[in-house]
Amino acid sequence: MTATPVADDAASAACCATCAAPALAEAAAREAARLLKAIADPNRLRLLSIVKHGPADGTCVCDLTEPLQLGQPTVSHHLKILVDSGLLAREKRGTWAYYTLVPGSLDKAAALITEL
Amino acid sequence: MTATPVADDAASAACCATCAAPALAEAAAREAARLLKAIADPNRLRLLSIVKHGPADGTCVCDLTEPLQLGQPTVSHHLKILVDSGLLAREKRGTWAYYTLVPGSLDKAAALITEL
Repeated sequence: MTATPVADDAASAACCATCAAPALAEAAAREAARLLKAIADPNRLRLLSIVKHGPADGTCVCDLTEPLQLGQPTVSHHLKILVDSGLLAREKRGTWAYYTLVPGSLDKAAALITEL
Repeated sequence: MTATPVADDAASAACCATCAAPALAEAAAREAARLLKAIADPNRLRLLSIVKHGPADGTCVCDLTEPLQLGQPTVSHHLKILVDSGLLAREKRGTWAYYTLVPGSLDKAAALITEL
């Protein structure tokens, strides 16, 4: 989809004979960075950790605010980023929202790093 | 090292009986986020990809500028972040600097996500 720019052969030959292998395509890199940026935040890592080790049927939002010692709007902001990026699923039950990990989402994110 | 705040039992009991599992500790989350942030950038992902698939004895900096279509100072800035975070190693040979992946560094970063 995205054209990978070809290195200038003359310039490359000035220092080494082997041209660089094709890089991760630009669009794929942007997409991967988007997901990894959603994870690469201390509070969001802690939220993911709490939800991962929480009840299988979901962790109540009321149990996510206290451990982080952050205000509810800040926690909601981080949770929205995690839901929007496909890492967490949100289900409203009565008064409260419950969060679960989207199955395979963390493995998918990790694979973006190991399979570069 | 870092005390994990304990949820207020009375507040938690208002919506569910199970308290949240201990979150990833604050200091560990900050450290993990620092490394993941170094990776979570489209240009740095592409640089890591080129170096990973490049010659085993290192990819010349001259082969890293062209594929990204970025200026040399910008590429140097991204490479510095990758070296400082322990992902890439830099070796000067004659006129040019050569970059290699630090063995195990990408697996270590991925494990921060899968082992949350």
